[in-house]
Amino acid sequence: MRKCALTGALLVTALATPALANDDVMKLTADPANWAMQEGNYNLTRYSKLDQINKSNVGSLQVAWTFSTGVLRGHEGGPLVIGDVMYLHTPFPNIVYALDLNHDAKILWKYTPKQDPSVIPVMCCDTVNRGLAYAEGTIILTQADTNVVALDAKTGKEKWKVKNGDPKKGQTQTSTSLIVKDHVLVGISGAEFGVRCFMTSYNLKTGKKEWRAYSMGPDSDILVDPKKTTNLGKPVGKDSSLKTWNGDQWKIGGGSIWGWWSYDPDLNLIYYGTGNPSTWNPAQRAGPDGKPIDQKYSMSIFARNPDTGVARWVYQMTPFDEWDYDGINEVPLVDIDVKGKKRKVLVQFNGNGLGYTIDRATGELLVAEKFDPAVNWTTGVEMDKSSPRYGRPYVVSKYSTFHNGADVNTKGICPAALGSKDQQPSAFSPKTGLFYVPTNHVCMDYEPFKVSYTAGQPYVGATLAMYPAPNSHGGMGNFIAWDAGKGKIVWSKPELFSVWSGALATAGDLVFYGTLEGYFKAVDPATGKELYKFKTPSGIIGNVMTYSHKGKQYVAVFSGVGGWAGIGLAAGLTDPSAGLGAVGGYSGLNDYTALGGSLTVFSLP
Amino acid sequence: MRKCALTGALLVTALATPALANDDVMKLTADPANWAMQEGNYNLTRYSKLDQINKSNVGSLQVAWTFSTGVLRGHEGGPLVIGDVMYLHTPFPNIVYALDLNHDAKILWKYTPKQDPSVIPVMCCDTVNRGLAYAEGTIILTQADTNVVALDAKTGKEKWKVKNGDPKKGQTQTSTSLIVKDHVLVGISGAEFGVRCFMTSYNLKTGKKEWRAYSMGPDSDILVDPKKTTNLGKPVGKDSSLKTWNGDQWKIGGGSIWGWWSYDPDLNLIYYGTGNPSTWNPAQRAGPDGKPIDQKYSMSIFARNPDTGVARWVYQMTPFDEWDYDGINEVPLVDIDVKGKKRKVLVQFNGNGLGYTIDRATGELLVAEKFDPAVNWTTGVEMDKSSPRYGRPYVVSKYSTFHNGADVNTKGICPAALGSKDQQPSAFSPKTGLFYVPTNHVCMDYEPFKVSYTAGQPYVGATLAMYPAPNSHGGMGNFIAWDAGKGKIVWSKPELFSVWSGALATAGDLVFYGTLEGYFKAVDPATGKELYKFKTPSGIIGNVMTYSHKGKQYVAVFSGVGGWAGIGLAAGLTDPSAGLGAVGGYSGLNDYTALGGSLTVFSLP
Repeated sequence: MRKCALTGALLVTALATPALANDDVMKLTADPANWAMQEGNYNLTRYSKLDQINKSNVGSLQVAWTFSTGVLRGHEGGPLVIGDVMYLHTPFPNIVYALDLNHDAKILWKYTPKQDPSVIPVMCCDTVNRGLAYAEGTIILTQADTNVVALDAKTGKEKWKVKNGDPKKGQTQTSTSLIVKDHVLVGISGAEFGVRCFMTSYNLKTGKKEWRAYSMGPDSDILVDPKKTTNLGKPVGKDSSLKTWNGDQWKIGGGSIWGWWSYDPDLNLIYYGTGNPSTWNPAQRAGPDGKPIDQKYSMSIFARNPDTGVARWVYQMTPFDEWDYDGINEVPLVDIDVKGKKRKVLVQFNGNGLGYTIDRATGELLVAEKFDPAVNWTTGVEMDKSSPRYGRPYVVSKYSTFHNGADVNTKGICPAALGSKDQQPSAFSPKTGLFYVPTNHVCMDYEPFKVSYTAGQPYVGATLAMYPAPNSHGGMGNFIAWDAGKGKIVWSKPELFSVWSGALATAGDLVFYGTLEGYFKAVDPATGKELYKFKTPSGIIGNVMTYSHKGKQYVAVFSGVGGWAGIGLAAGLTDPSAGLGAVGGYSGLNDYTALGGSLTVFSLP
Repeated sequence: MRKCALTGALLVTALATPALANDDVMKLTADPANWAMQEGNYNLTRYSKLDQINKSNVGSLQVAWTFSTGVLRGHEGGPLVIGDVMYLHTPFPNIVYALDLNHDAKILWKYTPKQDPSVIPVMCCDTVNRGLAYAEGTIILTQADTNVVALDAKTGKEKWKVKNGDPKKGQTQTSTSLIVKDHVLVGISGAEFGVRCFMTSYNLKTGKKEWRAYSMGPDSDILVDPKKTTNLGKPVGKDSSLKTWNGDQWKIGGGSIWGWWSYDPDLNLIYYGTGNPSTWNPAQRAGPDGKPIDQKYSMSIFARNPDTGVARWVYQMTPFDEWDYDGINEVPLVDIDVKGKKRKVLVQFNGNGLGYTIDRATGELLVAEKFDPAVNWTTGVEMDKSSPRYGRPYVVSKYSTFHNGADVNTKGICPAALGSKDQQPSAFSPKTGLFYVPTNHVCMDYEPFKVSYTAGQPYVGATLAMYPAPNSHGGMGNFIAWDAGKGKIVWSKPELFSVWSGALATAGDLVFYGTLEGYFKAVDPATGKELYKFKTPSGIIGNVMTYSHKGKQYVAVFSGVGGWAGIGLAAGLTDPSAGLGAVGGYSGLNDYTALGGSLTVFSLP
């Protein structure tokens, strides 16, 4: 037996030559001098071991250098740093810059894709892009028009280019990609255009398509094994998605994939969430009996094998969505105490305002608690495993836009459609064991209406108005510390607007984030006390990152207001209630900042 | 006699009530806490008495705050600060911001003009604007489309608005305005479109047109008094302009007015320069005998009475231009020793590469020397007053594009068409008695060709290629110190690209400027030694300014690459030799910076 096992191990090693790309990513992310993934590391904790900048000296932080990207509108994501080179991306037209850190950030190369601007009106929530990925000398760019491009990191020359979708049908790309082994994982958005969205794996070296997993549809399309893929510990069974849709509606079912994704090399599982079902009008999605049905697997988290795409488990947070509470937010992986027991968990701060803690090996639901005190659409999630409702939220009928019906304006729903959190990724510090979460504190009035599907046309089916949550003293956001083991807010720091920037935690006992007015801030992880702030050129919706070069630590962030919260400013909407916009509450941003993409890099003097 | 004089003085005082606007400007500019004019003061010396930031502490300068303007392309000019408010402008569409310095630069108001974008292709050298003017609670905005708008400085509401020209005919506005007494002086550009350009005075309170002086044409149009207006000490005589043009060519004669202007309250004279005659093809402008004629008053400096517009004196630097050597550069007023005698002079660093020192009361030419060692088109200016050629440059026939003829490519002319200096204004320190001059060090090949005039269409008539001057080691600019009394370079600091930013000199024994790559720099006025530099988000073509708020000194500058030197980047020209562009030499800028308008404000920690 023992000999046999040993032989097996040797065999695996032999087959694994040449080295797989994830060796490179793992190696690069293990060195805190780099920032080699948008997410910082496969765990998506956005934590850095760098500690040169720390709680005692952060007050003397100053701007080391700056770089304008030449593009207006919303700048999400952030730079990568690998060795002596920084790689930057921009919103549409998705320019890529390689900057030489050895020579004052001189531009080593610049790649400017040619994209048909007709993709712009198909992008629901600004022309954002969540950034580049890197492995083995290759930069992966995911263009708005769904082209996936591999660039030589040294020269910027194209290695390969594939088309992942069709903007004419409403398919777009805003996500970064995740490189796992030799797989480049790329998501497709378009739930506001009736797109049946999907995750695709391309080969890093060749660009060849490996597998594609749709968010809904037949088992063979969604890559589930009816017997082996589980939902809260039980096999999903045959046609687990199909039977939760009325007729063929799954074909235009939504479930966008554009969040931040994680990977557990030991379990060999990747994790990601899916967005809302199409349309936003729930009445149109009711079952043949006129009652709610789940629309699986919109609003769900998938754990998949990156080699085959087959799901190990899946969990739907918001069955039969009535509010556009996307489930695509980041899914960080941490090992923490939950109810006195060390667990390997996945955490998600969901659009619906609930913070979930889930066993990432099995998909067992451990914690589901409100991380935004405003949340009123649900009284909570059934946690009793023996209940047939186990894992499902209880909906407050007053705030059920389905219960109230189409063409009825349901008022005072919290959170608003953009969720208690949207794309802005959280950070986790192993030193405190806490998550640091940029949140929205916004409510809405929501009026669903009947809408017809036409390929490439908006398929939204609701008008809404968003405004600060009551008793928020006008503040539309909080930056919070969250105990994911207990499901409790540890501290909460109010902000004037939603905190739309990704956070960073460091070994220097610091947490960083940015604000929509444009402030870059450092706070104490223990208390939330503000230790430093600086007004960058424009509102911040990018993610703070850190790197070290020639022994000196730098912290950097994109400015460039936009995104869903800043779409009014970004697209120059004069009617704050126009279209998806519904951004009335954010019109006050006009008093603080203007458009403009640039990078601000900080260091100690 | 004595009593009579006293009565007269009292009478003047009485008549002067209510106070004239220039009292306000004079008062505001006398307080160095403000930066109340684009030029710093009426003398246009760009000198500040602030000395908190000085030679010994400038090394610890850091970025205090930043502000993105939301507009790409070239940002010339700079902010105004009056009391607690900073006023910013942008290139087209010429947005105006009022920022509250008491509240972290919160936007007090924003004014966004509605302008027909069809003006953009009529702007020869990027969509620049050289900034706002202020007097008595009014902000004056000079829009690209030639609207002149008076805004309430407190609210941003329009007080009055007048149309100063017609973009359909090629008339545009890029200049700031100069407010003298109750006169708002505004220039019109368009020499590349065959516009006969003019200076107009509007009443500050009402917007009513007061006078208009054309650059060429009948005496009544150009507002000269044949007997009293002098040229190098002699009356200009009747039809002094008309008789220097072939037939009616003066009607499409050019002579743009967009530089930086000065005012001497004691002499009650305003000073400004004029641009090139139209077209750039000199053969087309020859006299009836086929010989050069002067095309007065293109390429000239005017001294005018601001109340009547009538010229006191005029001097033409480059008669019968063959190279587009504009004479519109700034005209600072200083009192310095010239050949052992204290003189009240005007200084100009002309596009043609000669630094002129002129008695500003009489127009007497005192000094005319090369401030760029590359200059080769002339051997110098005749300084012998008894010569019939007094004040005229001697042209080297090898570099005479007229002598060589149309459709002949004359090579190696120095400087290039954009001059040894263009719009970038110099600074003067009374502490050193020296000028600090941002210069170009660029040569060209120039091929004139026949062109027909059509209103609103380009009327250029030459193609050219520009490149670094020989023996410049690739550097296309120098930042120099100049002794205007002697006509000598005191020191010269080479820069990789032309220095397209305006300089600032301060009582802190510092001189500041910016570079096209985006560096903001402080140097020692005595030696040119670099004491501080910082990489701003984009290339700098704005002018450095300083102000003081709550006892703290700040230094600020616009980033935002563009202007003539940066037009290739700004307009995304892929063919570096396209159109007026001819910016091949500057294509290297792509390796250093990208577009993006923002303000960077510096202070000590």
